Amino acid sequence: MQQLNIDLGTRSYPIVIGEDVLADRKLLARLLPHTNLLVVTNDTVARLHLPELIRGLGDRTAAVHTLPDGEEFKNHATLNSVFDALVSARLHRDGAIVALGGGVVGDIGGFAAACYQRGIAYLQVPTTLLAQVDSAVGGKTGINHAAGKNLIGAFHQPIGVLSDITTLRTLPPRELRAGLAEVIKYGLIEDLHFLEWIERSLEKLLTFEPAALEHAIRRSCEIKARIVATDEREQGARALLNLGHTFGHAIEAAGEYRTWLHGEAVAIGLLMAVSMSARLGWLVSSDVQRVKSLLERAGLPTSAPGLDAGRVLELMQLDKKIKNGHLRLVLLPRLGAASVSMDFDPAQLRDTLQEFLER
Amino acid sequence: MQQLNIDLGTRSYPIVIGEDVLADRKLLARLLPHTNLLVVTNDTVARLHLPELIRGLGDRTAAVHTLPDGEEFKNHATLNSVFDALVSARLHRDGAIVALGGGVVGDIGGFAAACYQRGIAYLQVPTTLLAQVDSAVGGKTGINHAAGKNLIGAFHQPIGVLSDITTLRTLPPRELRAGLAEVIKYGLIEDLHFLEWIERSLEKLLTFEPAALEHAIRRSCEIKARIVATDEREQGARALLNLGHTFGHAIEAAGEYRTWLHGEAVAIGLLMAVSMSARLGWLVSSDVQRVKSLLERAGLPTSAPGLDAGRVLELMQLDKKIKNGHLRLVLLPRLGAASVSMDFDPAQLRDTLQEFLER
Repeated sequence: MQQLNIDLGTRSYPIVIGEDVLADRKLLARLLPHTNLLVVTNDTVARLHLPELIRGLGDRTAAVHTLPDGEEFKNHATLNSVFDALVSARLHRDGAIVALGGGVVGDIGGFAAACYQRGIAYLQVPTTLLAQVDSAVGGKTGINHAAGKNLIGAFHQPIGVLSDITTLRTLPPRELRAGLAEVIKYGLIEDLHFLEWIERSLEKLLTFEPAALEHAIRRSCEIKARIVATDEREQGARALLNLGHTFGHAIEAAGEYRTWLHGEAVAIGLLMAVSMSARLGWLVSSDVQRVKSLLERAGLPTSAPGLDAGRVLELMQLDKKIKNGHLRLVLLPRLGAASVSMDFDPAQLRDTLQEFLER
Repeated sequence: MQQLNIDLGTRSYPIVIGEDVLADRKLLARLLPHTNLLVVTNDTVARLHLPELIRGLGDRTAAVHTLPDGEEFKNHATLNSVFDALVSARLHRDGAIVALGGGVVGDIGGFAAACYQRGIAYLQVPTTLLAQVDSAVGGKTGINHAAGKNLIGAFHQPIGVLSDITTLRTLPPRELRAGLAEVIKYGLIEDLHFLEWIERSLEKLLTFEPAALEHAIRRSCEIKARIVATDEREQGARALLNLGHTFGHAIEAAGEYRTWLHGEAVAIGLLMAVSMSARLGWLVSSDVQRVKSLLERAGLPTSAPGLDAGRVLELMQLDKKIKNGHLRLVLLPRLGAASVSMDFDPAQLRDTLQEFLER
């Protein structure tokens, strides 16, 4: 079991990563001292992991609200169902939400906690690799709008993150691979050594080797924690965490959140950002090939044939990094270092979109 | 024209109060430097005051989104219509909302600003007395839930408050009186001299005497600004601003937000809090009579006959000041001083409810 901390002053909190930690009563009592609880989870996760969590909560009673499983339910109707459940459970400001599940459960559960009674506490208990390395950490919460992913939301930090790597064994292989896209992202934006480690350890990660998973999660969280601590509300550096996401979000939206998992769309977006960086002369073609080969080895998609480039470009215009009407992209001056740029030729962007879509 | 400031560190902002300030281009350019704007307003207010505001915005173009008029529309469907309008207007994080209207417009506009792209700027331009003295100041935003008023919301401070007292002349008399309930509240919780001034100046206020209105608004905002500055997120002192509101919110909800205006329900709640304070031996019966007479002179209701006391008590249990399951009430040790108490006999509360309801 390992612990690291997100350092945000009065909003600081611990991230605990380990095997079989869900049912650990002492740990749960430390992370979550509240007595008035609503567990928000989904159908699939409830079947697999709710009993352990209930065991971990000991003699505390908790109401449970189960969401349908899938990104297409990350909408205001589902959010409202959580509000109704909070009211039914008679939660007050001193109550807390426990978000047990993947990114959708964490984002909706966290956003409900942000808004209910203008803000109550919540504990993130992510059960997917993607949530453990990314969405459960950093306080971004929200829901999708037809016009864009996470367009409605709040910055609301959890009181803790409890990542049980044992839960990853029940993940469909496709979901594990989707999470690896975000792990690879951390290597690309900040740590070439970590990228090399991922290249070496990919088989161990794909076969659920606990020590490898624990390291991948810990290092990913460390990088994210450091960046979030310098820029909680995404005024600057935090945007770097969005490498591949401006492309990825638009690809997801174009597929109406049904075609691609978030991590898969990010994988395509990562390669597009790498390719775009090469078009700008920042990277060389062997860098592009290297990233493409890693994504392929991880079983991730590297293009989205059949999507209309014009439509995807339109969806990209809704990106939250837009300033004064200018699209800004996270790009790579070299592997292991990222920067935000709006200094590119629109034709280069169009060429990139056409290379990876439409074919 | 007068200006005071809410002192909240990096979230500090000015409150400007004056006659014919809506169309003041220089002032609006100072308060609102943004270029990408969505004005949120309602049918009634748009007809009366939108042209002046548009004049004040000068050559800046602003999209306008008009809500239906009424507290019963302060719900998630209306909120979603604002999100749709923000998307249609292509607002990004550097855009801003201008909330032109009463409490409902300000609360929904502010909450939409809190959530859109996880937070954009907004300017409050309150056009009712109630909004100018209370709801537009302090950053509380939100919508109602069937189970309770403002149950879903956020603390999100505006970048400024622009109160044009000229707009009050178009208020229906009932709305002006509803606003006076909150003005009287400030006297009761913090300033006996101000209460005496209200008693002396009531006729001037009821006949829209500009100097009297300007003083009433300024002094109310001063008291609110001081309290909010000490307790932005309502962990302590800010609860005092809720004198009469635990009763009032429950009365509003019991009438499904159609029977009573917010200020009217607060007026009834104020007298219930005063009466309850007398039951506890904190106030004497002449204090109760004094407050009752002031509310009556202001044309405000002082009881809600026909409501079921048990149902209202049930609705009070959803109050956001509940701690460890205990209902806490703001009560008055003396006129001009308030404190939060849970040290009362449930029978005293029941008697108070029965005295003012059910008859």
